[in-house]
Amino acid sequence: MSPPREVLAYAPASVGNVAVGFDLLGHALDGAGDRVLARRTQSGEVRVVRTSGTPMDLPSDHLRNTAARAVHALLQARGASFGVELELEKGIPLGSGMGGSAASAVAALVAANGLFADPLALEALYPYALEGEYAASGGRHGDNVAPSLLGGLVLATHAGCLQLAVPEGMSCLLVHPDLVVETRLARARLSAPYPLSEFVVQSEALALFLCGLHRGDIALIRAGLRDVLVEPRRAELIPGFNQVKQSMLDHGAVGASISGAGPSVFAWFESATQAAAAMADAVAAFAAAGLAARGLVSPVAAAGARIEQCTA
Amino acid sequence: MSPPREVLAYAPASVGNVAVGFDLLGHALDGAGDRVLARRTQSGEVRVVRTSGTPMDLPSDHLRNTAARAVHALLQARGASFGVELELEKGIPLGSGMGGSAASAVAALVAANGLFADPLALEALYPYALEGEYAASGGRHGDNVAPSLLGGLVLATHAGCLQLAVPEGMSCLLVHPDLVVETRLARARLSAPYPLSEFVVQSEALALFLCGLHRGDIALIRAGLRDVLVEPRRAELIPGFNQVKQSMLDHGAVGASISGAGPSVFAWFESATQAAAAMADAVAAFAAAGLAARGLVSPVAAAGARIEQCTA
Repeated sequence: MSPPREVLAYAPASVGNVAVGFDLLGHALDGAGDRVLARRTQSGEVRVVRTSGTPMDLPSDHLRNTAARAVHALLQARGASFGVELELEKGIPLGSGMGGSAASAVAALVAANGLFADPLALEALYPYALEGEYAASGGRHGDNVAPSLLGGLVLATHAGCLQLAVPEGMSCLLVHPDLVVETRLARARLSAPYPLSEFVVQSEALALFLCGLHRGDIALIRAGLRDVLVEPRRAELIPGFNQVKQSMLDHGAVGASISGAGPSVFAWFESATQAAAAMADAVAAFAAAGLAARGLVSPVAAAGARIEQCTA
Repeated sequence: MSPPREVLAYAPASVGNVAVGFDLLGHALDGAGDRVLARRTQSGEVRVVRTSGTPMDLPSDHLRNTAARAVHALLQARGASFGVELELEKGIPLGSGMGGSAASAVAALVAANGLFADPLALEALYPYALEGEYAASGGRHGDNVAPSLLGGLVLATHAGCLQLAVPEGMSCLLVHPDLVVETRLARARLSAPYPLSEFVVQSEALALFLCGLHRGDIALIRAGLRDVLVEPRRAELIPGFNQVKQSMLDHGAVGASISGAGPSVFAWFESATQAAAAMADAVAAFAAAGLAARGLVSPVAAAGARIEQCTA
C-alpha cells in the first residue's frame, strides 16, 4: 500500500512553564488546538498555501515559518524525495500564551510525517518541533512543543522528553483574556540578572513539585507549584493578573500562574468540578480590569497530537 | 525510669549541594563524623566545656556557637528545666566542605534531645539544627544538617526534609585536600548576579537528576549530576580541581563536583569498588597541584546521626 497523499493532523494547545519549570515544563490542553493538512507535492519545497481559523492579531508570518521550518527540517533529515504543501487551520489565538506556534509546528510535523511510507514515532519528531519553535520565539525551549506532541505533563530537555505522571483528576483552568502579549516582548522582561537566592527558592519549589508528582502527594505539589522567578517580572504585562490568580487560589487551586509568556492565566485543581467552579470568578476578575476573557477546563493529562484523516 | 544524665551522640559528615542542588541537596558520609557528649546541669545554661579531636585550622568559636545555639534553641522550645554542658569531639576537619559545623550541631542536638524523658523524633530536630547552621554560615540552608541528622540523600527545604531513594550500590568517593576554604568566603564568590539562562540549564539538570532517582535510571542521574552555576565560580579556590574532577570522570563517575563550599571534591560511582578504584588517581591529581589529600569511600545512602551511649 502506498502512503497517503494528504494527511490531516491535530495538535493541542499547551500551558508552558507551568509556574515552576520555566522553559522546561509544559502540559497539553483539551479544547483548543491547531489543524494542519499536509499534501505531498513533486516540487521538493515546503510551502504554506493557506492559513485560516482564529482571526490573526499578529502577522501570521512567523506561524508559517514555524510550521514550514519544522517540516523542512524533517524532510531534510529523512532525505525526502517529495515536497509538502501545508494548510493551517488555527484554533489557538496567537500571542495568547497557549502554545499556538508550537501547536502549528507540531500539527504540521505530525501531518507531514504521515506522508512517509515509514513514519517516525512521535517522540522522534521532537527535535524538528524545536526547530519550528525556534522560528517563532528565537529559543529552542520545548515546554510547549513537547506536551503538544506527546500529551500530558512533560519535562522537555535538550536531550529529549520525559512524561511525568500526574495525580488522577488533576485539572487545569485556563483563562484567556482578550489581549496579546508577544512572546519576544515577554522574554525581554526577563533579561535583568538574578540573585542566586531567587534561584534557590525556585529550585526548592521545582524539587518539591517533582517529588510531589512522583509520590502522588498533592501537598508537595501545592508547595512547589509557584514561580518567584518569572511571574513577578511579567505580571504587570497582564492587567488584573493578581486578582485573577487570587480568585483561583480562593477556589482552592493547587497553584496558579501565567501560562507560557501570557496573558492567559492557568491554575491546577484537584478535580474538573473544582476547576469549572472557579471559572466565573476568574473571568469576572479580568472583566474588572477591563478585559473580556474566556475560560477552558482540561485534564492536565490531556491527549497530545494525532492524525485525524489520511487521503490516498 | 528517669532520663539519662549524660548522652553521647554521633553525627556523620556530609556532602552538601551534591552539584545540582545548591543549598538544597545533601547526603551523609560514612567514615567521618563528630561526637558530642551532653550532660544535664542545674544551671539552665548551655555551655561548651571541651573541644577535642581534629586539630583546628580555624578558630573553633563558631563551632561552639553552632552546637550551643542549636541546643539552646531546643531547650527553649521545649521549656527545659535544666541546662546542658557539651563536650565536642571533632572528627571532621573545619573548612573542609564535609559539613563539619552541621555535624557538630546535629550531634549536640541528638545528645541533648536524649536528656529529655520524652525525646523528639529525629526529624523534629531539623529546625534547631538549622539554627545551629545559621551560627556557622550565616544562612539557614539545611543541605548538610538534614543528611547528617537523617542519613542518606535528603532534599532539605525550609518546610522540612524529604529523603530520596538512591539506586542500590551508589557510592561516593570524597577526596579532601589539605587546604581550608572558609564557607563565608566561598559564598562571597557567588554574589554576582546570574543570567536566567544559567538557571534554566541548572533547573533542567535538577529535574533530570530527581526523575532519575525516582525511576532508578542511572543515565538520567548522570545527565543531571552537574553544576553550571556554582562550581565554575568556586573551582579556582581549589588548586587542581579540574584535574581531580576529570580523573574521577575518567574512572566512570556518574558525576563529580565540589563538596559543599569545598575544598573537598566528591564523585558518585555505581559501586563502591569503582569508587575505591578512582581514589589513587584523584589523590595524585591533588598532589600534582601541590596538595596532600586523603580519600574516603561511602555509600550515598549512609546512616545518619545516632545515640551511642547513655549514662544514668
